[in-house]
Amino acid sequence: MQEKRPVSILITAGGTQEDIDTVRSITNHATGRLGSLIADAFLQDGAKVTYLCGETSVLPALHGCDVIKIRGVTMLIEKLDMLLQENVYDCVIHSMAVSDFTPCAVTTADEMAQAIERELCGGDFSKEEMSARIRDIIINGSRQLKENKISSKSDYLIMTLKQTPKVIRHIKAIQPQTLLVGFKLLSGVSETELLERALDLSARNGCDYVLANDLNDIYGDTHKAFLTDKSKIICRAGTKTEIAQIIFQNVMERINETR
Amino acid sequence: MQEKRPVSILITAGGTQEDIDTVRSITNHATGRLGSLIADAFLQDGAKVTYLCGETSVLPALHGCDVIKIRGVTMLIEKLDMLLQENVYDCVIHSMAVSDFTPCAVTTADEMAQAIERELCGGDFSKEEMSARIRDIIINGSRQLKENKISSKSDYLIMTLKQTPKVIRHIKAIQPQTLLVGFKLLSGVSETELLERALDLSARNGCDYVLANDLNDIYGDTHKAFLTDKSKIICRAGTKTEIAQIIFQNVMERINETR
Repeated sequence: MQEKRPVSILITAGGTQEDIDTVRSITNHATGRLGSLIADAFLQDGAKVTYLCGETSVLPALHGCDVIKIRGVTMLIEKLDMLLQENVYDCVIHSMAVSDFTPCAVTTADEMAQAIERELCGGDFSKEEMSARIRDIIINGSRQLKENKISSKSDYLIMTLKQTPKVIRHIKAIQPQTLLVGFKLLSGVSETELLERALDLSARNGCDYVLANDLNDIYGDTHKAFLTDKSKIICRAGTKTEIAQIIFQNVMERINETR
Repeated sequence: MQEKRPVSILITAGGTQEDIDTVRSITNHATGRLGSLIADAFLQDGAKVTYLCGETSVLPALHGCDVIKIRGVTMLIEKLDMLLQENVYDCVIHSMAVSDFTPCAVTTADEMAQAIERELCGGDFSKEEMSARIRDIIINGSRQLKENKISSKSDYLIMTLKQTPKVIRHIKAIQPQTLLVGFKLLSGVSETELLERALDLSARNGCDYVLANDLNDIYGDTHKAFLTDKSKIICRAGTKTEIAQIIFQNVMERINETR
C-alpha cells in the first residue's frame, strides 16, 4: 500500500498594516492567537502547515511549519497567489484580519474646501454634474500619500481611503478544489444577523465553512463562535482552543472522506 | 554627610495608537528600542527610572524601573500629568512617537458629496460663506467614529482627523525645574533644516536638549543623530547605543552641576 502524502494546510493569521506615510500605518488589531492555535491543532496531527501571517502575529507553538510574514494587503495577495499557484492545499483557513481600506490621499480641510469652491465657481452645473465634480475632488483632489511624513501643522486632515481587493476571492479562483474556511467578525449584532452574513460570505466566495463571531463575545479567555457549513450552524465553541478544535475536526473529517 | 537621593528620570518611549473603530487603529511605528537603551544607561548608573511607553514597546533590559503602558494620546496625557504632579524628576526624556492626529469622523465619498451639494443648493452664498460651509461639512458633517466596526461596503471612505494636544508642552508647564530632552524626527531634509526645526522645538517647549534625526539616516544598526542644546549642535551619534550614551552623559553632567 502506498503511503498517503501528508495533509497540506494553508493558514492565514494575524492582521495587515496599511501604511499612511513613512511613520504611521492603519493596523488591524488581530493578534494571530486563534490562527496559531488552529495551526498547532493541524501540526500536532502531522499535517504540513504553511502559516501566512502579519508582521507582529503570534506564531504556532509547535515547530515545523513554514512561516511567511506579510505587511499590507498588496503583499498578502502577492504571496497568497504565489502559494496557491505553486502548491496544492487540502484546505485554506483564512483567519487573517485583512484591512478593508487603504489610505490613498490626504489633504487638509481648508485645502479640500477651497478646491471644491474653486471648481463650483467656474460654471453653472446641473445637480448631477455638481455632485460628480465634488465627489471627484473628494476622492482624487488631494495630494498623494506615502512619500513623506505628513506635516502636523493643520488642525484637521482629511484622509481618503479606497477599498482593497477582496483577498478571499483569490482562493477558490486559483484552487477551486481546496476546502475553504472563511471568517466573519462583526460587532454587536444578533445571532440571526451574524448567521446571515456568514452564509452570505460563504455564498459569495465559495467557503465550505465559515467561523462566525462577534467582538462583544470575545473577552479574557472567552471567545464565543459558531461554525457554519454552506447553509446552517454545525457547531459552537466558547474559547479559542475550542474554536481551533472544531475547525480541525470538521476539516479533517471532510478531507478524510475524499482521500 | 547625608546621602544624596537617587537621580530620578522619566522616559517616554515607543509609539501611541489612536483607535479608528473597534478593530482598527492608527499606529506610530516606533519600537521603543532607543527609549529602552536610554533607560538602561540610567538604570546601570543607579538612577530611579519611570518608563512610560506604548503597549507594544520594547522594555529596558535591566530590571528595577517602573513601567507604565499607555495606548492613545488621551491616556498618555492623563498618566503623564499625574506622574509630573506626584513626583519630582531631575529629567524628562520624551522619546515617544506621539500621534499628531486622531480620527474623529468618517463618511463615504458619496455621502460627503451629497451633503455639500444639499448645503450649496439651499441658497445664494458669498465666496467666504460657501468656503466656510463646505469646510464645516468636511469636518463635522460625517457620522461619529469608534462606536462600531466601519462597514466595508463603500468604494471610498473619507476620514477626518483632528490634531491632538501637544503632549510635550505639559512637561515644563507642570515641572518648570526639570531638565527636558525633546526628540525631533523628520524625513528627507537637510541638516540645516533639521537643526532649525530642532531649535524651534526647543524654543517652543523649553527643551534643554533636543535629539534630532532623519528617517533616511536610520537603517539596520545605523542611526545617525545629533544632540542640540538651546542654540547649537553639541554632539553626534551613529547608533542607538551611542545616542543613549550621549543623552545619558549630557544629562548627568548637568544634573551633577546643580545637585
